[in-house]
Amino acid sequence: MAEINSRLYELSEVVDKKFSHGEIPPDNIVEEIRSITSVGGYIGMAQIDPTAGNLEFNAKKIAKYIKYSERIGLDMVVFPELALMGYPIEDTIDRHPLIVRENIKWLKGLAKITKNTAALVGFVEPREKDAEGKRFYNSVAVLKDGKIQGIVRKSLLPNYSEFNDYRYIEPSPVVGMQPVDTLGCFGESKIKDSDKYLNIKGTKYGISICEDCWNNKEFFEKNLYEKDPIEELCGADIFINCSASPTRAKKEQLKHNMLSFISSKYGKPMVYVNQVGAIDNISFDGSSRVFNSKGELIARAKSFEEQFLIVNPHQNIGKIYPLTKGLEKSLTEQKVFTLEYESDLERTYKTIVQGIRDYFSKCGFKRAVLGLSGGLDSTVCAVLLTDALGKENVFGISMPSKLTSKESKSDAEELAKNLGINFTEASIKPMVDTTTSCLDDLFKVVETKWDCRYKTSFTPDNIQARSRAMFLWGISNEFASCIPIATSDKSELYMGYATINGDMSGGFAPIADVPKTKLFAFARWLNYNREEKNSIPESIILKKPGAELAIDPKTGKTLNAEDALMPYEFLDEIIWRIENKNESYYDLLNAEFVYEKKNSVSREQKIEWLDKFYRRMSTALYKWSILPPSVIVESRSINKSDYRQPITSARINYKGVNEEEIKNILL
Amino acid sequence: MAEINSRLYELSEVVDKKFSHGEIPPDNIVEEIRSITSVGGYIGMAQIDPTAGNLEFNAKKIAKYIKYSERIGLDMVVFPELALMGYPIEDTIDRHPLIVRENIKWLKGLAKITKNTAALVGFVEPREKDAEGKRFYNSVAVLKDGKIQGIVRKSLLPNYSEFNDYRYIEPSPVVGMQPVDTLGCFGESKIKDSDKYLNIKGTKYGISICEDCWNNKEFFEKNLYEKDPIEELCGADIFINCSASPTRAKKEQLKHNMLSFISSKYGKPMVYVNQVGAIDNISFDGSSRVFNSKGELIARAKSFEEQFLIVNPHQNIGKIYPLTKGLEKSLTEQKVFTLEYESDLERTYKTIVQGIRDYFSKCGFKRAVLGLSGGLDSTVCAVLLTDALGKENVFGISMPSKLTSKESKSDAEELAKNLGINFTEASIKPMVDTTTSCLDDLFKVVETKWDCRYKTSFTPDNIQARSRAMFLWGISNEFASCIPIATSDKSELYMGYATINGDMSGGFAPIADVPKTKLFAFARWLNYNREEKNSIPESIILKKPGAELAIDPKTGKTLNAEDALMPYEFLDEIIWRIENKNESYYDLLNAEFVYEKKNSVSREQKIEWLDKFYRRMSTALYKWSILPPSVIVESRSINKSDYRQPITSARINYKGVNEEEIKNILL
Repeated sequence: MAEINSRLYELSEVVDKKFSHGEIPPDNIVEEIRSITSVGGYIGMAQIDPTAGNLEFNAKKIAKYIKYSERIGLDMVVFPELALMGYPIEDTIDRHPLIVRENIKWLKGLAKITKNTAALVGFVEPREKDAEGKRFYNSVAVLKDGKIQGIVRKSLLPNYSEFNDYRYIEPSPVVGMQPVDTLGCFGESKIKDSDKYLNIKGTKYGISICEDCWNNKEFFEKNLYEKDPIEELCGADIFINCSASPTRAKKEQLKHNMLSFISSKYGKPMVYVNQVGAIDNISFDGSSRVFNSKGELIARAKSFEEQFLIVNPHQNIGKIYPLTKGLEKSLTEQKVFTLEYESDLERTYKTIVQGIRDYFSKCGFKRAVLGLSGGLDSTVCAVLLTDALGKENVFGISMPSKLTSKESKSDAEELAKNLGINFTEASIKPMVDTTTSCLDDLFKVVETKWDCRYKTSFTPDNIQARSRAMFLWGISNEFASCIPIATSDKSELYMGYATINGDMSGGFAPIADVPKTKLFAFARWLNYNREEKNSIPESIILKKPGAELAIDPKTGKTLNAEDALMPYEFLDEIIWRIENKNESYYDLLNAEFVYEKKNSVSREQKIEWLDKFYRRMSTALYKWSILPPSVIVESRSINKSDYRQPITSARINYKGVNEEEIKNILL
Repeated sequence: MAEINSRLYELSEVVDKKFSHGEIPPDNIVEEIRSITSVGGYIGMAQIDPTAGNLEFNAKKIAKYIKYSERIGLDMVVFPELALMGYPIEDTIDRHPLIVRENIKWLKGLAKITKNTAALVGFVEPREKDAEGKRFYNSVAVLKDGKIQGIVRKSLLPNYSEFNDYRYIEPSPVVGMQPVDTLGCFGESKIKDSDKYLNIKGTKYGISICEDCWNNKEFFEKNLYEKDPIEELCGADIFINCSASPTRAKKEQLKHNMLSFISSKYGKPMVYVNQVGAIDNISFDGSSRVFNSKGELIARAKSFEEQFLIVNPHQNIGKIYPLTKGLEKSLTEQKVFTLEYESDLERTYKTIVQGIRDYFSKCGFKRAVLGLSGGLDSTVCAVLLTDALGKENVFGISMPSKLTSKESKSDAEELAKNLGINFTEASIKPMVDTTTSCLDDLFKVVETKWDCRYKTSFTPDNIQARSRAMFLWGISNEFASCIPIATSDKSELYMGYATINGDMSGGFAPIADVPKTKLFAFARWLNYNREEKNSIPESIILKKPGAELAIDPKTGKTLNAEDALMPYEFLDEIIWRIENKNESYYDLLNAEFVYEKKNSVSREQKIEWLDKFYRRMSTALYKWSILPPSVIVESRSINKSDYRQPITSARINYKGVNEEEIKNILL
């Protein structure tokens, strides 16, 4: 058995490779696989990367795997949630209902090519006009024998963080499969008391969709929903979950533990098929998997890659591909802030590289241009872009001003050389000089009408940052399929320490959800783990971050970011505590920070930093609202797909007041 | 009675004026009001403008009206939905739960100042930790005799368009009032079978919150929810609805008809108190109102102004303030596209002026700077800014390039003179020259590595637009409390006909939801209806729109926008049909457009325009995602608070394919 098993996966890898190159796998290999898998009980987990709304593209991909599954005699092939439409499709289906009608046509087309192998295909189901509630269901169709055999509809609709299911989707009033005659016209009144399980060769499959399996009352301390669809499906022999579950820091552990818990609690295998690939800000990690009836992991597909993984849950047949390194840690970790990022760096890397690659390919872009300052942010972006797009498609431009040090220039050049990307230097001095002179004249006029000119301003700093963006956007306008990259990091975006129409502007922002302290660890990780070692010059990692946009009057040297803001280790812990523990001002003040364990920080100093943090964050909300598309990486973010706060809430009092003060104010 | 009535409103206007200036109304006037209103049956409708999350600001405003109501002996004072927190507060309460705890403290503080007059105050109610579901309710507290007397919770949670209630709010399992001991720990298991009505002097009030009254099964063709809270409250003598309902084109008619229908259907007066003011992109129109038991309107507060309107629904006592002109039209209109915008222009004006004013004041800005091109977009923006901020706070800059005509310069100057705003001219020529020369050098280097340089590009156009933005952002950096204005209109944003980091960049975008044909009508309306007549030079309204960024090779003159795009009348009808009727490509192709009734358009021409529309729209999605805060004006928009579509969905096939093609593709 073990031998058959290992042979099956050896052959499958050949098939996967052929598929990924758009080629047809060799007949002899397919036949050998068929000889193993056509005996019954085998399931194909089609971990695919769909494009939102591109029905033809998605349907062709699905058809390919349906035909292959048929050919090797699988019992069933399972696709992710909304595989045909792509998830998330957001409000598109509401404004352009045509694409929902179209997805039904494609679904019926897919049904026609099925024969003996059942195919579970996620799609958007329109609801009949006169039905109460939203206009659509998030559904999975069971296709077999040339027809749609039944429909499963999602009951639990997540609507937090990056999820917006409930905006356009109606929760299903019933769990499990309903007959095909309910397609498009299903509601409370039409629930059929038929068998809710899909029966194939005597095995009863209980099918659910994504969130439907995230509400176990024993596993979670707090439940978002009353209903537990899995509980209602516990008469099944095997659970199937079609999913589109994005990757976030610490989510893998939760997912693993939860799925394991459910399989062992009900004593049923769980087959979980997840989407892979990125749609805008959201990156899906794949890692589809099977737990046996004891809750043991028996199969897991690759992370961040399309894969067709064949399993036999009845017979514990599967292969466990490794997760990204370090992810198999315990759940408890997430309650404590740490500067040890090691266990999450490979996942971070793959999340962002996939995010860049999919954004570019799905939008039709090919090339990226970015400023190389010799600093950490642009350096890490350059490495990630190189790996996502290929070195020939990346252009790094060193754009020195009079404040740029020699080291910055040589570091940038060395980095570009190490990466093998295109590189040139272009001084912004002429533009800065002309702009400064034009603006000086203009300011003198404005001053005659408005007596509110600042004594010291950030205007000179911003002119530099905007001149650089002018270069990058110019190249993007002049050369085909090319977009400029915004290199801002998460810590600095929290502080609004980024220039509008300058470094925070771009077609894509790769590291907008990566805090600075993690970037330092990440740079080291990249140097150690990429095939080309030590591409990032050590001097870049060692230098103190600073935008080289202004002179620090105290030192006469260019201003350090940490002097303008606060120590990054401290800043990142504030961010982490707010995002992960929802701590308040006084919670933060009273907590002992990692930074405080290593450095002596007076209470006054801590108060100063906290006050600065809240003050700057309050006025950074506008910048968050115009942030380019980026990749969500951490557990929580400021990405607008994930977090929205009114800009006009800038005067929230984050400290609060006491009852006595309230009494006096209201008197 | 009629005399008392008219005296009451005469006096109340004096009080309102005093309050709006932050003054205390004179004793003798208050006493005279008291002599009318303290006999019983009188209710105060406190139509206030809260700031999201600014609890102290909101609580002080609420306290002011509670004390006043008490003093004049009202039975009750009613505030809008979430009056204490401000609506919408979005994800803020999830990330910063402190402000929810704080809002409870303020609520208790407000309760303490109540005596004989009941106060209905909207707030965010935290739910006990171990409860299932979301963490908060959207609630209204009944305050009286120094205490919280009861709690009403919202049952129907809108989650479409600009609404996101369901992201963080749990729907109430029960309608009407629950006892105070359920505060913060209410759930299915804790429903008290106590009286769901608020009983004051023998009158039973049925209290609901906003969406709760938007689900009548007879009135709406299609209902979003199963439950109808108003039906469950039909034992009341009077309905009260605390609301925060934003203004949109055509919504007023719907709202009026629906509320009238409900009052007459149940034969009960309906007291509807709406929020006024803007929070980010969303503008609330106030216009709080009362319908009597026959469904007749007996009172209506002003639109787009804070007001404290006293009514007596028992005795049909109220005053009907006018809506914005033209709004009282029938509902059926909205099904047909028309170029007659007259009936919506005053509402449009007030929506945007309020939107600008509130955004600036709530964020702490005071001044605006904008480019005056002599074209329609910047002209209308300048007028609106003048009325919202005061002429002394607006700076118009004419920024000619070599393509700018004399007329454009003189039109801009004349406009500024007419408006009395600050004005200067600043040539962008030096910046454009320097940038062009720097970029040319750079392009030559890039070209050696990338052989994908466009033969003709938009680079020169964009350099001009970006140089102008450089000026405006420079002023904003240099002068206190000043932000630059993005002048893009809706038609051009749909077409991506706006420059990133150029004219589409700014701190606020006043007309981003106004289509071009409406802007023409709007300009005329402004000229006729503002106190200063004809501020907009006729030549600006008459000239054909064009950005003066490029030369049309066919004519040798600067390129007309309509030649680059398509006739605006045609373009705006496409947009309207997609947004309002969700029409598809072929629906549009087969419909007869207003433009076609006036002009002969060949089928080939129409196809060319439609193809161009979809092609341009697909690649404009990114620009929509980085659009600055703006004001939602129309029934549907591309504002990101209202509509979100994945940028990576750029390859959607909006034409669809037929079954035969699908069959062949999937074979």
